[in-house]
Amino acid sequence: MPRFALKVEYHGAPFAGWQRQKDQPSVQGAIEDALARLEPGPHTIAAAGRTDTGVHGLGQVAHCDMAKAWDPFRLSEALNYHLKPAPVAIVDCAQLDDDWHARFSAIERQYLFRILIRRAPATHDAGQVWQLSHDLDVAAMQEAADHLVGQHDFTTFRSSICQAASPLKTLDELRVERVQGFSGPEIHFHVRARSFLHNQVRSFVGTLERVGAGAWDPVDVKDALEACDRAACGPVCPGHGLYLARVGYPQDPFAS
Amino acid sequence: MPRFALKVEYHGAPFAGWQRQKDQPSVQGAIEDALARLEPGPHTIAAAGRTDTGVHGLGQVAHCDMAKAWDPFRLSEALNYHLKPAPVAIVDCAQLDDDWHARFSAIERQYLFRILIRRAPATHDAGQVWQLSHDLDVAAMQEAADHLVGQHDFTTFRSSICQAASPLKTLDELRVERVQGFSGPEIHFHVRARSFLHNQVRSFVGTLERVGAGAWDPVDVKDALEACDRAACGPVCPGHGLYLARVGYPQDPFAS
Repeated sequence: MPRFALKVEYHGAPFAGWQRQKDQPSVQGAIEDALARLEPGPHTIAAAGRTDTGVHGLGQVAHCDMAKAWDPFRLSEALNYHLKPAPVAIVDCAQLDDDWHARFSAIERQYLFRILIRRAPATHDAGQVWQLSHDLDVAAMQEAADHLVGQHDFTTFRSSICQAASPLKTLDELRVERVQGFSGPEIHFHVRARSFLHNQVRSFVGTLERVGAGAWDPVDVKDALEACDRAACGPVCPGHGLYLARVGYPQDPFAS
Repeated sequence: MPRFALKVEYHGAPFAGWQRQKDQPSVQGAIEDALARLEPGPHTIAAAGRTDTGVHGLGQVAHCDMAKAWDPFRLSEALNYHLKPAPVAIVDCAQLDDDWHARFSAIERQYLFRILIRRAPATHDAGQVWQLSHDLDVAAMQEAADHLVGQHDFTTFRSSICQAASPLKTLDELRVERVQGFSGPEIHFHVRARSFLHNQVRSFVGTLERVGAGAWDPVDVKDALEACDRAACGPVCPGHGLYLARVGYPQDPFAS
């Protein structure tokens, strides 16, 4: 059966996360239902990252196996037709060897987290940013973030329901920047690693926000990391500012 | 009665335009209803520009008259509280002399129109851009747009239901640029004049798109303008890519 990689973009708001659920809408379910309109199912697709409720996809990657040798462009067009009006789009599609796996072949995940700084409620960006009415000190947050980069035991920044075998991970990048967004000033966090623990990015951002607000010193984040204790983490921030931005593979599956 | 200027931002999708309607939701109606929660009504507010169905506000300006001498910041906070969950936000508020008028004191209106160029359906920007799957020639559109700048009879670019006394207007700016948006390449049109005819911006953009796509030559837009004939206009583009971006006054009402 020909295997296809799908680059998937989605708005997280209407979904209880990526993973198919029995009684709740999911991104995986929406795509599998669209696949069933093309070829009789059941279809089960695998994704590089299983995003939580409200979390968005920009460059999520999944794969599916089809009976027919679809032209990749036609497959993405047909899926997009059947996905409407759900806010899910197949933005790229490629045929790959059948030992290629969206999750297990991935060697890097990159997340973006957006904070919008303004008092008045967001209108165009509602549900797409974590909105705060106080400004944040970017330099202090970057100083704190630098303590997190590298190989560490990230027990402090790991959800209690995380199923990873080990809390040891290598964080390759945590870059904080201020950008001018469509609705006001935004703080963006760019976070990159081979893989992440459950809630790791939201635990980072929630903790760094405390530093940016002046409630924590940058060095407090180093102490929290070294405590290897979930209780030492700052508040976990909401999911609706989080985007799975990019998944890296040894070779770009979509390079034509 | 103290008069207050309100800078209003809104997502146009859930509204049948700015103006209060009997049986349909409107931005004006949403704000007047919120005002009635603060002081007994009826309230009637005036706005600088009466945007159509689906058209967005970024810097719309309206004014209201209140019985109490509200602190402007508290007034905007109270309105935002009662406006929830409608995608309407008061982003600035100031008290002004009672002969100041949001519409009649305005000396300039600036609109933004966004086209998103990509094949896959928009997810995060759905309803906030006009999406096209073909690319557009920005230089050709700018050349065509330059024919429209200045004082002209804009009968060609005026809706048949336009109520303006004269088709003579002075267009101060029509600038076309390519920008990298959140979801892909975008074409932005920045359009500025003292005032506009009904559907003028959407008639401009719909016609310029024909130039950008190569179906019209830039000089065809000059001919269409000089024809002073509605039938010479290109297609009127959809409203959901249009934003009332800024309203100019002799003195900035929100300069604190």
